[in-house]
Amino acid sequence: MPFVKIEMWEGRKPEVKQRLVKEITKVIVDNLKCQEEAVTIIISDIPKYNWSIGGKLASDSFNSKI
Amino acid sequence: MPFVKIEMWEGRKPEVKQRLVKEITKVIVDNLKCQEEAVTIIISDIPKYNWSIGGKLASDSFNSKI
Amino acid sequence: MPFVKIEMWEGRKPEVKQRLVKEITKVIVDNLKCQEEAVTIIISDIPKYNWSIGGKLASDSFNSKI
Amino acid sequence: MPFVKIEMWEGRKPEVKQRLVKEITKVIVDNLKCQEEAVTIIISDIPKYNWSIGGKLASDSFNSKI
Amino acid sequence: MPFVKIEMWEGRKPEVKQRLVKEITKVIVDNLKCQEEAVTIIISDIPKYNWSIGGKLASDSFNSKI
Amino acid sequence: MPFVKIEMWEGRKPEVKQRLVKEITKVIVDNLKCQEEAVTIIISDIPKYNWSIGGKLASDSFNSKI
Repeated sequence: MPFVKIEMWEGRKPEVKQRLVKEITKVIVDNLKCQEEAVTIIISDIPKYNWSIGGKLASDSFNSKI
Repeated sequence: MPFVKIEMWEGRKPEVKQRLVKEITKVIVDNLKCQEEAVTIIISDIPKYNWSIGGKLASDSFNSKI
Repeated sequence: MPFVKIEMWEGRKPEVKQRLVKEITKVIVDNLKCQEEAVTIIISDIPKYNWSIGGKLASDSFNSKI
Repeated sequence: MPFVKIEMWEGRKPEVKQRLVKEITKVIVDNLKCQEEAVTIIISDIPKYNWSIGGKLASDSFNSKI
Repeated sequence: MPFVKIEMWEGRKPEVKQRLVKEITKVIVDNLKCQEEAVTIIISDIPKYNWSIGGKLASDSFNSKI
Repeated sequence: MPFVKIEMWEGRKPEVKQRLVKEITKVIVDNLKCQEEAVTIIISDIPKYNWSIGGKLASDSFNSKI
């Protein structure tokens, strides 16, 4: 407890992910007063061609950005 | 708002996915009266060897079909 | 196959949901060429106080709308 | 982009949730360099009788705690 | 590790859920050779009016059954 | 009905997955008294570099184990 899933565009570097999960875990521990070891986070790297906003795939609309 | 996740067997062509998300977005906008830009859809391509129906992996049972 | 999950603010009427799932199912059958009976959709009614956009709960920011 | 889902035991106060989503959003914006408005978070309040750790429902094992 | 989510129609008794999570946990431990305490299962009770098969809400099609 | 999602570290062999889904399906059929064909299971293979426990990626903490 608790369980967090982050769905985001693929392409982030390992060190960005490391910092991200570390800081989110800290925020959760501070606010929910749970143990650090109890916090699980899964990152789901979604290709832009599988992510649609407003009916358009992000591979078409946001091609140059992460 | 709203957020849609579609889990389906991998192997669909980009143009099929494009049409799929475009038409689902339209149905959602028409029925929920929300803004087009507010509709997010994520497609999750699941390999058949990770999809089980009735206790059998689809890679065994449905090998030739998508 | 396929499996669809729709997360949206709670408060929609049953007849809106009925039309929504009927039309999304049709779009999926037409585009993915699968059988109608194979399409499962789950609607997840999320209270606005559990839905955050830009760091603010929708119960604060979007109180009057669905 | 990105989309976050937090599953946790039910029973948190609104002000705890407000702070939680605000701080997680900030962490995401800082690390992923995305726009604040692009960050969506859904909290899923799970009753302890629907949450199992090690084969035991948390309603039996952790009854007094949140 | 691992994390399991079961979405099913609401209405199951607590003792059914207890047996279900206990036996699934055992199957996972036996097959994946992981520790019992590492297995988390969340049950999601879905109302039939939010579950559609073949474009029809289960509240209409399967009203008398669980 | 019902729908099960298993998120676990990637790297399991096909025959382990086959046995896993077969046995989980049996447990569900026995306990929920539903038809075998109605049980869908999706396995989600998560790389350890996307799975965090206690704020640390499992690729750092559990590198040698599955």
